[in-house]
Amino acid sequence: MANLQAAPRFIRACKRLPVDRTPVWFMRQAGRYMKEYRELRKKYSILALAKTPELACEVTLQPIRAMPIDAAIIFADILLPIEPMGARLRFAPGPIIDNPVRSASDVKRLKNFEPREGLGFVLKAITLTRRELGATPLIGFAGAPFTLASYLIEGGPSDHFLKTKAFMLEQPKAWDALMRKVRAITADYLKAQVEAGAQAVQLFDSWVGCLSADQYRRCVLPHSRFVLAALKKSGVPVIHFGTGTAGFLEDFASAGGDVVGVDWRMDLDAAWKRIGPRAIQGNLDPTLLFAKKTVLKAAVKDILSRAGSRKGFIFNLGHGILPKTPVGNVEAVVDWVHERRLN
Amino acid sequence: MANLQAAPRFIRACKRLPVDRTPVWFMRQAGRYMKEYRELRKKYSILALAKTPELACEVTLQPIRAMPIDAAIIFADILLPIEPMGARLRFAPGPIIDNPVRSASDVKRLKNFEPREGLGFVLKAITLTRRELGATPLIGFAGAPFTLASYLIEGGPSDHFLKTKAFMLEQPKAWDALMRKVRAITADYLKAQVEAGAQAVQLFDSWVGCLSADQYRRCVLPHSRFVLAALKKSGVPVIHFGTGTAGFLEDFASAGGDVVGVDWRMDLDAAWKRIGPRAIQGNLDPTLLFAKKTVLKAAVKDILSRAGSRKGFIFNLGHGILPKTPVGNVEAVVDWVHERRLN
Repeated sequence: MANLQAAPRFIRACKRLPVDRTPVWFMRQAGRYMKEYRELRKKYSILALAKTPELACEVTLQPIRAMPIDAAIIFADILLPIEPMGARLRFAPGPIIDNPVRSASDVKRLKNFEPREGLGFVLKAITLTRRELGATPLIGFAGAPFTLASYLIEGGPSDHFLKTKAFMLEQPKAWDALMRKVRAITADYLKAQVEAGAQAVQLFDSWVGCLSADQYRRCVLPHSRFVLAALKKSGVPVIHFGTGTAGFLEDFASAGGDVVGVDWRMDLDAAWKRIGPRAIQGNLDPTLLFAKKTVLKAAVKDILSRAGSRKGFIFNLGHGILPKTPVGNVEAVVDWVHERRLN
Repeated sequence: MANLQAAPRFIRACKRLPVDRTPVWFMRQAGRYMKEYRELRKKYSILALAKTPELACEVTLQPIRAMPIDAAIIFADILLPIEPMGARLRFAPGPIIDNPVRSASDVKRLKNFEPREGLGFVLKAITLTRRELGATPLIGFAGAPFTLASYLIEGGPSDHFLKTKAFMLEQPKAWDALMRKVRAITADYLKAQVEAGAQAVQLFDSWVGCLSADQYRRCVLPHSRFVLAALKKSGVPVIHFGTGTAGFLEDFASAGGDVVGVDWRMDLDAAWKRIGPRAIQGNLDPTLLFAKKTVLKAAVKDILSRAGSRKGFIFNLGHGILPKTPVGNVEAVVDWVHERRLN
């Protein structure tokens, strides 16, 4: 990325450089809402798609072929690292871990691993996809330490994250050991993705919104910060995404991402004011993609007007695209975002 | 309430008057975590308990007998008003509405009703309980218009409130008509509760956290404001409670409750700064009641220290007590809150 003048607008926006149009991509842009994806899913499980580089590449490219999206994100699952750590993962249809982490000795038995060995298929998929993509930049990603740890501890779906919070608050040493293991693996995995060709990475802290501000600061923030700091040296922009962070957005932003991802529960301009001079990504309510076009367009325009002409805005949803989202509405959002000239 | 000097500390705190100790009560303090409640539930359904004034009174008194809590809250369900409106409600075990609201004509068929006729059993339970309670003040309550409307539209459990948001955004006239019906019923119902003996009321906007700030301001706020304004004339304090409101707390507070209820996702002092000179209720993470006493006590102390010596603080959880919560921890919280002398 020596010549930023020639860099794609997504990368330029991450670095708060001027862009001609606001870049736009969508979390879960490769997924069930697309017919092409559903066709492949008839033949392959999620894990089979993610573990076969050619298939992961194909799925990653599907939305890029369909729409002029400004970035691709490698098709993978945030839970993939827990298998080489020693957790037994299956989807039924949600993720189930048959040997969850409940004690200090469970933490001890979790293995560190070399990303090239444990998750080589993701790295191969990145290299392959990067070759196919042409000018569109490719984003790599990983689950943030809290979100990954909460899956390891709960072992399945959870409403209140009771087991995670009990572990975190009552076994602080075991929690710290767990988070140190997970953060090291996460940092190594993301660095390996950059080496394999990812031009940006996103850290997904999807469940961090169940925490109090105090819990976030004491038990989670230092570990997210470790991962984000480790990535600084890689030279690619790092997006730090969370949902339900409005209660502690300043703390969340202080973890150090180049770009802060915010959900739809707060006004973009209010969020931006709170995080200061930093790039920001968001923040359309994913359910709005089910609305009729006039309603959807008004919401897109509202976000763009709150972004104004500030540098460093990346249009996205506040969370992932939901399964039955109409494809035409996703395409329309890309067009509306791109309609507005900035330079 | 002519002589506020003699008023209980809960009522005084609602009015931001000096108190000797911080008042404390818990949402869902009458419920499954208590053995006495589970015993009654073996014999009676939730609806049977709520619809039999003597049983509702008994359940309301259970936690008051067990602990020196500063307020009782009448045992009822926020969905009770939808039955006399014409919705068919059952619990299986979560609430199911067999004839949900999906169109303008569905809204038209919803009936207004006289609280004394449609919900006389709640009013009788309030009068009866008030007589039994002695000095402990009794809180009445209702679901806020959005939360009630979302149940009417979804008709059952919902992850993303897709149907509610589609209705709200795509059928704005029908939504407005629905919210006007629900808000009028809610205001009448709460006024009737005050006439029956409730010394304070709480408006529960439990699901409002699924909304964007813009959706909240345009589609919900005016209707919550209507209910809160209608109650002003009743002379009793009104608590306005929501969860997930950190993204639009200023808007939420502008609806006009005397007391603003906040969940655990933000620091109490930060929330208080945002809402200005107003009483505040909250904000312990309900999952902390499962933690060991040292951890729980530290969290209680943190909240009390963030409240400081400011007038107008009511200690509560950020949401309701969860089913398997250990009773001893609830009792301990009451004691720790009361340990601290304020005057």
